[in-house]
Amino acid sequence: MPSYTAPIRDIQFVLHEFLRVSEQDTPGYTDLDADFTAAILEEAGKLSSAVLAPLNLSGDHEAAASTTGWCARPRASRRPSTRSRDGGWTAIDVAEEFGGQGLPYLMHTAANEPMVSANMALNMYQGLTHGAYTAIKIHGTDAQKACWLPKLGSCEWTGTMNLTEPHCGTDLGLMRTKAVPQEDGTYRISGQKIFISAGEHDMAENIVHLVLAKIPGGPEGIKGVSLFVVPKMLVNEDVSLGARNGVACGALEDKMGIHGNATCVMNYDEAEGYLLGEAHKGMRAMFTMMNEARLGVGLQGWAQSEAAYQNALAYAKDRLQGRAVTGTKNPAGPADPLIVHPDIRRSLMDQKSFNEAARAFTYWGASMIDRSHKMGDAQAEAMISLLTPIIKGFLTDKGFEMCVQAQQIFGGHGYIEDGGMSQFVRDARIAMIYEGANGVQALDLVGRKLAAQGGKPMMTLIEEIKVFCKENAEDADFVRDFIEPLKSASKDMQQAAMFFMQSGMKDPDAALSGSTDFMHLMGHVCLGWTWARMAKAAQAGLASGTGDRDFYETKIATGRYYMARQLPATKMHLARIESGAAPVMALEVDAF
Amino acid sequence: MPSYTAPIRDIQFVLHEFLRVSEQDTPGYTDLDADFTAAILEEAGKLSSAVLAPLNLSGDHEAAASTTGWCARPRASRRPSTRSRDGGWTAIDVAEEFGGQGLPYLMHTAANEPMVSANMALNMYQGLTHGAYTAIKIHGTDAQKACWLPKLGSCEWTGTMNLTEPHCGTDLGLMRTKAVPQEDGTYRISGQKIFISAGEHDMAENIVHLVLAKIPGGPEGIKGVSLFVVPKMLVNEDVSLGARNGVACGALEDKMGIHGNATCVMNYDEAEGYLLGEAHKGMRAMFTMMNEARLGVGLQGWAQSEAAYQNALAYAKDRLQGRAVTGTKNPAGPADPLIVHPDIRRSLMDQKSFNEAARAFTYWGASMIDRSHKMGDAQAEAMISLLTPIIKGFLTDKGFEMCVQAQQIFGGHGYIEDGGMSQFVRDARIAMIYEGANGVQALDLVGRKLAAQGGKPMMTLIEEIKVFCKENAEDADFVRDFIEPLKSASKDMQQAAMFFMQSGMKDPDAALSGSTDFMHLMGHVCLGWTWARMAKAAQAGLASGTGDRDFYETKIATGRYYMARQLPATKMHLARIESGAAPVMALEVDAF
Repeated sequence: MPSYTAPIRDIQFVLHEFLRVSEQDTPGYTDLDADFTAAILEEAGKLSSAVLAPLNLSGDHEAAASTTGWCARPRASRRPSTRSRDGGWTAIDVAEEFGGQGLPYLMHTAANEPMVSANMALNMYQGLTHGAYTAIKIHGTDAQKACWLPKLGSCEWTGTMNLTEPHCGTDLGLMRTKAVPQEDGTYRISGQKIFISAGEHDMAENIVHLVLAKIPGGPEGIKGVSLFVVPKMLVNEDVSLGARNGVACGALEDKMGIHGNATCVMNYDEAEGYLLGEAHKGMRAMFTMMNEARLGVGLQGWAQSEAAYQNALAYAKDRLQGRAVTGTKNPAGPADPLIVHPDIRRSLMDQKSFNEAARAFTYWGASMIDRSHKMGDAQAEAMISLLTPIIKGFLTDKGFEMCVQAQQIFGGHGYIEDGGMSQFVRDARIAMIYEGANGVQALDLVGRKLAAQGGKPMMTLIEEIKVFCKENAEDADFVRDFIEPLKSASKDMQQAAMFFMQSGMKDPDAALSGSTDFMHLMGHVCLGWTWARMAKAAQAGLASGTGDRDFYETKIATGRYYMARQLPATKMHLARIESGAAPVMALEVDAF
Repeated sequence: MPSYTAPIRDIQFVLHEFLRVSEQDTPGYTDLDADFTAAILEEAGKLSSAVLAPLNLSGDHEAAASTTGWCARPRASRRPSTRSRDGGWTAIDVAEEFGGQGLPYLMHTAANEPMVSANMALNMYQGLTHGAYTAIKIHGTDAQKACWLPKLGSCEWTGTMNLTEPHCGTDLGLMRTKAVPQEDGTYRISGQKIFISAGEHDMAENIVHLVLAKIPGGPEGIKGVSLFVVPKMLVNEDVSLGARNGVACGALEDKMGIHGNATCVMNYDEAEGYLLGEAHKGMRAMFTMMNEARLGVGLQGWAQSEAAYQNALAYAKDRLQGRAVTGTKNPAGPADPLIVHPDIRRSLMDQKSFNEAARAFTYWGASMIDRSHKMGDAQAEAMISLLTPIIKGFLTDKGFEMCVQAQQIFGGHGYIEDGGMSQFVRDARIAMIYEGANGVQALDLVGRKLAAQGGKPMMTLIEEIKVFCKENAEDADFVRDFIEPLKSASKDMQQAAMFFMQSGMKDPDAALSGSTDFMHLMGHVCLGWTWARMAKAAQAGLASGTGDRDFYETKIATGRYYMARQLPATKMHLARIESGAAPVMALEVDAF
């Protein structure tokens, strides 16, 4: 069975040496000294290793069971959910007024990582609850906040997001679920929603569904969509539970992965609902929490890769097979461990160098969200909006790819379900799909984000990379290993963006034909830039003479690997982009 | 539920316009005129679409059931296996003297493709039987052939391959299963084998296991391995069944995919076995059938991709979501079909351009095997040996990737098991692992095949591409679209091979660190070359003025896509390769 250990030293490196959190002026960050964050991470790590990870495989095997439209989570998940809730882990960044600890979102992200790595399907119950909490906190009236937030903050009640319908996912303007206004100010919600994670279960007394629906007579299409709070159990004035509402689980989906999460068809039959935010502004309400939700999914992608990597590494050190081409390394044994073989080492380095940069980049994104939410920092908001498609789309595409590589190291043993490596692949797969399929992320990036504010955020990013390169032009080794590859990749990114600007004017298909390639090109630039900055931080650690030399040297070597082996992908993506729309759109639909 | 239609026009194009089979001097090829092969393919297609494909999903869901060490295939698989057998499909290239049709291996490959696309797990029963047939045909005594081949040729009895043990897969020298010689010339086989596909089931009266084992006192390691025939039921002189042999299924593996095939732990307890070929030459016996076995697995990779693509294409034409960026294409409907979106088109073209080239390249490989086996053509044998790692490793890596892309087009619906898209991904995944994991294929390519015969086969390949480019330097459009990209990619391949030669002398790790990248680089060159030749064939079709213009124009446009969008990968792989061993091997094992 797979095991998991929270990489606390790596997380601490990102928080304190890469981001230098306690030196930042974001509210709440000065309290985040290394001892404080270490204490949190160690507890989160213990819970993850000892309680959550051991139940990951059984959650996959038992899956959620359905009985006449009612469903329960796997038996194995009950105890840890309670442990996680009772430990206050679900409320780490919940406002103190609603019973939480009021820590920054960055700390929620850092404490959440080990739990996602250890048991993604189970973590989703609290992740969705966190989403519902955030939506109501931002858009709710005072009365709504008072009613729902304390229970959601503590995870006593759990939350869901209801967007998709059988005939529409990406194109929510086609939505049919309707919300009919009542005289008392409530609405009656009717319709069917599908793919509702954590839609029904027996772990909480109540489930608070956030539901997108159309108020009859409103604007056509996406502009006529409103957001509603629809609880499973109606709630009395004193917040005690009342009658069952008109919402029921119609079926439990049999999925490729995340079996431990109950993905439901939810049927709404004149269910009582309460408008959240303004009528017809439901999509805008969803957008305000979108960066955060998508960052959470991006994290799932590489957190699964991290867990898969840890197990692949252990296997590569343990499994004896063949002899090193440069001479026997384990003369006492019948064969050398897998890790002596260069192609195995290449695969492990692919995984390691991706995971570490993905973590640092995601945490940096979380710090931008804190600046945006806590300080109204418009530049941070613009930057995280630009980079959200990278965090969600690129990191989940790559995270999945790395899970496949980790599984591959096990050979045939990786294909056997009892080994657990297949689960990482199957669970990571969903992160490429939900919360906006990755093709939609690429479309959002190229079709919207690149040109946002006249391209200013993109120019800011390019400028920041340029400044970094200029400021680090002295050290010849560093220039060769980090600055030159970064410059070259960044130039490819600019050239691709220029191609979009020039050709996109004449033919929008020319830009959109290269959208996925651009998302990957830019993703490599972002992770390359992240590695260059991490290598600087590691150099500082070495220079200080106080830390663990091996740790810093390993960090720098891992960064060098990423620059040498991953950044060359930017030229391939650029060539594909510059081939334009012609090859992509050449065939008539009937010619396929 | 997914559906499948055999792409007969595409297969016919490969056989008659690309390979021009009936003009070749390979024995049996002159009989393969277009009417004859069409008749075979149409029947194979009907069986695949109407019988095998509809049972693919139920085979996945039911899986093989285990009862006290005995197991049965999914109920759904019984009928079609019989149909496939009774129709003579399993014996298409079985020698006439053993009851087969004696057609070339190429025709077996072409008729097999639809069956693999339609139902890979089920097809494996006959695929493994075909392997056992081939091994005994090549290495058996006349008496052995007479005893086993008629029943294996007809699939009345099925076959298996027993190589892997719990502690060894790639490194078979570590094998512990032993074969003790008896006075009557038979052996007693004892040991445990794992991952045995089709190891136990109730579809045939007998199962003929081919088992690798060590004769005590023989050479150490891989040089002491011998191959044995070990039937489940002992066979009397008159080929009637005798007593049960000492072999039993110990457990059925729960796997990520190919659920419809019974993957077994097989326990041998003094089972009666018969030496096949020479003692201690078991690996050599395996090698003689390796190119064929690996070609079969390579075909599985892209045949799954073909089936997944057909369903993704149908969905992309049917599913209405969003509007085309260049203006509404389906004004009568609430939205445009997915296929109008450039990123969806890009994904479909990735799949289509890969599948078609993979097919042509594999069939070309099968024609080389025919030349090798039927004519003793040493150059063909050398060429297929060089390219087998590409067919097996590259085509299965890419085939899996394309299945993931096809699944992605379905969005959330692709993640639901009832939709069947997950099955293509999960089934295709095994092809990257078994029959030599793809890392081992890359090692075989770079560590052995490149340097074979002093590099002569590789030089022949390069020379053939060069000649092709020279012979087609007239048509400016063709040069721009096909010859230039092919030349450039081929140059990258030569440069990479040169790097291996130069650096590999000093440091073998430098070559092996780039082995997987080289396999992919060379794979793109091979498929690019295949596309250039297919485009020539399509041009000839156009020039003849007799065929379907749309078909030929689509073929050329699909080739252009591959050249423009896929061949740029060679530069990325070259850059990675030329970064050498340093980044890959930088970390000490303990530093991971």
